[in-house]
Amino acid sequence: MTNTKTDIKCRIAVDAMGGDFAPKHEILGSVQAMKESSDFELFLVGQKEKILKVAREENVQIDESMIIDAQDVIGMDETPTVAIKSKPNSSLVVGAKLVREKRADAFVSAGNTGGMMAASTVLIGRIPGVGRPTIGASFPTERGKFCIVFDAGASVDSKPQHLFEYAILGSIFSKEIYGVENPTVGLLNVGEEESKGNELTFATHKLLKESQLNFHGNVEGRDILKGTVDVVLCDGFVGNIVLKFGESVLTFLKSRIKGYAEKGLLNKLKALVVKSVLKASLSDMDYQTHGGVPLLGVNGISIIGHGSSSPLAIKNMILRAKEMHDKNLIKKFEEAIKAYAVTK
Amino acid sequence: MTNTKTDIKCRIAVDAMGGDFAPKHEILGSVQAMKESSDFELFLVGQKEKILKVAREENVQIDESMIIDAQDVIGMDETPTVAIKSKPNSSLVVGAKLVREKRADAFVSAGNTGGMMAASTVLIGRIPGVGRPTIGASFPTERGKFCIVFDAGASVDSKPQHLFEYAILGSIFSKEIYGVENPTVGLLNVGEEESKGNELTFATHKLLKESQLNFHGNVEGRDILKGTVDVVLCDGFVGNIVLKFGESVLTFLKSRIKGYAEKGLLNKLKALVVKSVLKASLSDMDYQTHGGVPLLGVNGISIIGHGSSSPLAIKNMILRAKEMHDKNLIKKFEEAIKAYAVTK
Repeated sequence: MTNTKTDIKCRIAVDAMGGDFAPKHEILGSVQAMKESSDFELFLVGQKEKILKVAREENVQIDESMIIDAQDVIGMDETPTVAIKSKPNSSLVVGAKLVREKRADAFVSAGNTGGMMAASTVLIGRIPGVGRPTIGASFPTERGKFCIVFDAGASVDSKPQHLFEYAILGSIFSKEIYGVENPTVGLLNVGEEESKGNELTFATHKLLKESQLNFHGNVEGRDILKGTVDVVLCDGFVGNIVLKFGESVLTFLKSRIKGYAEKGLLNKLKALVVKSVLKASLSDMDYQTHGGVPLLGVNGISIIGHGSSSPLAIKNMILRAKEMHDKNLIKKFEEAIKAYAVTK
Repeated sequence: MTNTKTDIKCRIAVDAMGGDFAPKHEILGSVQAMKESSDFELFLVGQKEKILKVAREENVQIDESMIIDAQDVIGMDETPTVAIKSKPNSSLVVGAKLVREKRADAFVSAGNTGGMMAASTVLIGRIPGVGRPTIGASFPTERGKFCIVFDAGASVDSKPQHLFEYAILGSIFSKEIYGVENPTVGLLNVGEEESKGNELTFATHKLLKESQLNFHGNVEGRDILKGTVDVVLCDGFVGNIVLKFGESVLTFLKSRIKGYAEKGLLNKLKALVVKSVLKASLSDMDYQTHGGVPLLGVNGISIIGHGSSSPLAIKNMILRAKEMHDKNLIKKFEEAIKAYAVTK
């Protein structure tokens, strides 16, 4: 597997109606992405008139031919599976279908997360041999590099084979996107010893140990931020809780520092110093850096963003999608899954 | 249930041989606890000669009658169940037996965590009606009060009935120890909606909803530090990972601030400010405040400390054990478990 670029120009569909600030942030982020790279085609999927109106208001140039009309919108609170069935003209369904029909290589959305997962899984479909698609959440580490946790919430009650597939997909992602040569894989557990764990980890440990993957063994909750391994595996229930707990740490810190600052002028000045230092030291904790989380295992590029995505986050989602396309990741996933199915 | 003090003077057994700095920190912590309160009896369980020798070295007065000799020591790396069987004269086994034989009301240890859990569960035994004992980990919150997570790692692959019991025990602990009137209980989950979750949470949600407990509903990973509820329920696998992830946050922050400080004199000065502000704002994140984590559901008071417990942590473990005794917690647990078994 090499990183040679594919010849076909990347085509990225952006859900213009997803996200709390749609279509404004989606339009602005798309324009920024196109400024940074001319080497791809971009479609805005959503309500044509509204997109053109907001573009005019924001004083940015959107070519009408870039817009793929989709009149329906799936709200943040709608039940995913119901919504994608009942709203075939929604931006989520239309965007996912573009990928299925090979009219686009990637689809990115800051809309309803469950809806995006369902639309991607059902409409784009899975890579042959993949049981369940998985979301990877990147955590900053003491070592400076990122640790990606799979699964961060795509599904729960997973089987050992699912975690094994996450390991294959995650290793490729870590290598290709974060440039880690031969990424190490750890199984999230309550202790490092092989004797520790639950039914799922015992069976998964065995699968990983017998595989050709660079399996480090069990890791604990503290190993994520420590950066002990490059890829951490767990059931989506656990990963989702760790992800949301992790995201809440900065909010908690800010609230404590705010409380401290309120206790006098000197405290207020000190708190300003703290804020600037934390901002400088924790820049890689900013979700906007990644833009969104990739949904791996579907037969096309699918990236899911925060509902509150900024234009910067949207831009980075688009550029990440482009990078995944240019590095031919879907093909590499497919080949690796096939290879492991034969050898295992 | 009232908080009237029991008439019998509390007797606390301290594992003098547990912990990385045993028996020194155990002796110093015990002496500090006795200085703060004369209202209880204390036993040091361990190698008599060694305890007396270290006490002399530290220049503190230990009455020989306070020492209960136990020649064996269970190391940090020994397999818990094997060790408690093969070392009947270890401090862990002798201490737990003191509680079983009603010669002590509480046992505290900073030694082998698994060993302490096994010794407490097997030797002291469970409160009638309790399926599995549980460890509670206290997290600081934005609201200033603590949120306790059960189970933080006593067992994995738990059943709905176990989590339901944690809710009963945890509610009483939160009320009696943290003074929360009618504590709220949340079920840790991947979403707030009742439709979200895994097999365990669906069944547990039903049990809690139908109960008389102050059940808030599902909570997410971010709700722990937010302080949405007073008691959070989860399987020990999840709780242990969140606990260890949480403990690693400060280490991670320190490492990042250290990296920042190394980039010049001004940075170094700013980093000093950050350290002092974080120390002042996050004082309740210090494990020494609690001293250790309580093991609830066993038929006696059992508190498990960090291996690296300081004398301050040991002192606080002892005083927490005394508080649990004086507030008659074991009796209250027993009555509540019995009441719910009848009504459910």
